[in-house]
Amino acid sequence: MDRIEDAALVVEEGRIAWMGRRADLPVAWADAERVDGGGAWATPGFVDPHTHLVFGGDRSGEFNRRLHGVSYAQIAAEGGGIRETVRATRAATVAELVEAAEGRLEELRSRGVVHLEAKTGYGLDLEAESRQLEAYAALKAKGWNLDVTLLPAHDIPTEFAGDAERYAALVATEWLPELVRRFPGLARYGDVFIEKGVFTVEQGRRIFLAGKALGLTPRVHADELSWTGGAELAAELGGASADHLMFCSDSGMKAMAATGVTPILLPGTTLFLGMRDWAPARKMIEAGCAVALASDFNPGSCPCLDPLLILRLGCLQLRMTFEEAFTAMTLHAARSLGQPDLGHLQVGARAEVLLWDLKDPLELVYWVGGSFLPRRMNVTS
Amino acid sequence: MDRIEDAALVVEEGRIAWMGRRADLPVAWADAERVDGGGAWATPGFVDPHTHLVFGGDRSGEFNRRLHGVSYAQIAAEGGGIRETVRATRAATVAELVEAAEGRLEELRSRGVVHLEAKTGYGLDLEAESRQLEAYAALKAKGWNLDVTLLPAHDIPTEFAGDAERYAALVATEWLPELVRRFPGLARYGDVFIEKGVFTVEQGRRIFLAGKALGLTPRVHADELSWTGGAELAAELGGASADHLMFCSDSGMKAMAATGVTPILLPGTTLFLGMRDWAPARKMIEAGCAVALASDFNPGSCPCLDPLLILRLGCLQLRMTFEEAFTAMTLHAARSLGQPDLGHLQVGARAEVLLWDLKDPLELVYWVGGSFLPRRMNVTS
Repeated sequence: MDRIEDAALVVEEGRIAWMGRRADLPVAWADAERVDGGGAWATPGFVDPHTHLVFGGDRSGEFNRRLHGVSYAQIAAEGGGIRETVRATRAATVAELVEAAEGRLEELRSRGVVHLEAKTGYGLDLEAESRQLEAYAALKAKGWNLDVTLLPAHDIPTEFAGDAERYAALVATEWLPELVRRFPGLARYGDVFIEKGVFTVEQGRRIFLAGKALGLTPRVHADELSWTGGAELAAELGGASADHLMFCSDSGMKAMAATGVTPILLPGTTLFLGMRDWAPARKMIEAGCAVALASDFNPGSCPCLDPLLILRLGCLQLRMTFEEAFTAMTLHAARSLGQPDLGHLQVGARAEVLLWDLKDPLELVYWVGGSFLPRRMNVTS
Repeated sequence: MDRIEDAALVVEEGRIAWMGRRADLPVAWADAERVDGGGAWATPGFVDPHTHLVFGGDRSGEFNRRLHGVSYAQIAAEGGGIRETVRATRAATVAELVEAAEGRLEELRSRGVVHLEAKTGYGLDLEAESRQLEAYAALKAKGWNLDVTLLPAHDIPTEFAGDAERYAALVATEWLPELVRRFPGLARYGDVFIEKGVFTVEQGRRIFLAGKALGLTPRVHADELSWTGGAELAAELGGASADHLMFCSDSGMKAMAATGVTPILLPGTTLFLGMRDWAPARKMIEAGCAVALASDFNPGSCPCLDPLLILRLGCLQLRMTFEEAFTAMTLHAARSLGQPDLGHLQVGARAEVLLWDLKDPLELVYWVGGSFLPRRMNVTS
């Protein structure tokens, strides 16, 4: 992460055409319109590569019960947890889903997030998953920068309780083809929650392979609550990412490094669930992985719309350096989404530039709890 | 923590004269001037019972080295750490100290903190400790609500390296009396950092007893990095609080409960130092202690001016209920400072009322990362 003091940055048609020391500005742009950055630090915008953006309702009622010591498992056994969100999402209209999501997107944008990944997975039936996709299509049509991931295998719906095998087969053979048929070109990725009590590696492989045949690159909910081999599966399948990874094995790390799978770590979830098992970021970096960070924004395990909280947890509890954590939320996140012109300020990049009025970007982490809002670079030409 | 829906609150001369359901408002106040709360939740303002408010410089340079894996001990051995802040504080004028502190106080106030405790301890010589007190006197004269604590035994200054015994004796027999003589009535509390490599329980007892003879009630930096018996010492001396307590013993908890010492927990520091040893809040509550939470605001181990981050860590990582954590940041914090008319909304309390535009106060924690700012109740009469 290079720093340039007293810098200038040339934007042409929404892309960076030149960047360097102001004194070195080529004469070709000497007469171009100028915008004074006011001495702020310019950085690339944040890319959030793991969110569950569209859902109905919230889970603050359940949250209070959990703070009173009721376990997640107990809440789930009573029909709460993710099932509460599934009920609320199924009951919501597309317009309601879009309106709630747009409020969240505006908050994320004001805090510097310029692009994000967003999953289905709160419908868990064909029509409700389809309505989530309809909401994502509407949001993209309004100009929001999203990459969509199909996640009907987020949980086993109550209609299939005790029969994950039959549900996985249905998703692989009928729902994925039908959802791709209904929304051609909308979703770029497929995801499965591989976890004890949810989907096995074998069931996941079947769904992922069906998705790949439809053009959906795997992103894997992997090794979150226990080791199940999700990282290894992502590597085997040529996936884009394996996400969560609190219980990732050493061989899983090596496999991700060897195959270019991005480990996406979600420390906000560890914080919010009161867990003590932070993902082994340092071991992954030492294994040669290009670690990314994400919010995991969702109503049950991380209702966090603040990229700075994720950056801070990356530094303070995952023990990444500032440079590693910032790169994880920009360059590595963008690469995991196949967005080569985001997440950096090289020539050719999209001019998604944040301006921070700070002595040093490090202060974003140091003043822990500070609610710094970036300015956006407004370029008229 | 009772809740009243559709409530009214009567303020007379800056104090709460009545509170209850609006329908029950006594006729005596029927014609009083009314301020519409707009359906917001009214809560007492936050009280922060452990800060190091006044200091020179910051420590963001050292912070980056720490993120790069250099240990606190290594930084301290090179003359950094608290010694860097001592150098900067000794070099600062009183006006500079006041100006920096006032910016921090304005930030805290905007986030709902209405009263706080603030320590000396970055001078570590008589004149620089005295200048910190001069700064606190100036801030109080400007109307800021502070309780001041003398902490010349915050560390062993370089001039006394290897001779904690001689420094402790000097503080007890000469500096405390002289500082109290110079600023009569300003400081209400005395504090000592009891820790391996800093001050022993015996040295602490000597300083605390000298302070008590001067009217300074003990607050103890206790059991932060290892068990040293600081909580037991606070109980033995009739202290107001024992603070940090990550390594507090079971007998220390019992002793605090039996003697009414407030355990003050500082989870922001655990987060910022990347530690995994969160204070055992639940065990303390079960032992009968009235746990309080504080920011520990300081430039080295917790540059946090956000009470909501502390509230969230109290719930999420210390595993307190919302009611316990909110009470810890209001009622219990105020009690530990001998401020019976702060930290609650009973009749007679000072009308330091925050208004939160939320469906439920629980959202302050649930929307982790949200930067909610309270409105203040503006009463003209």
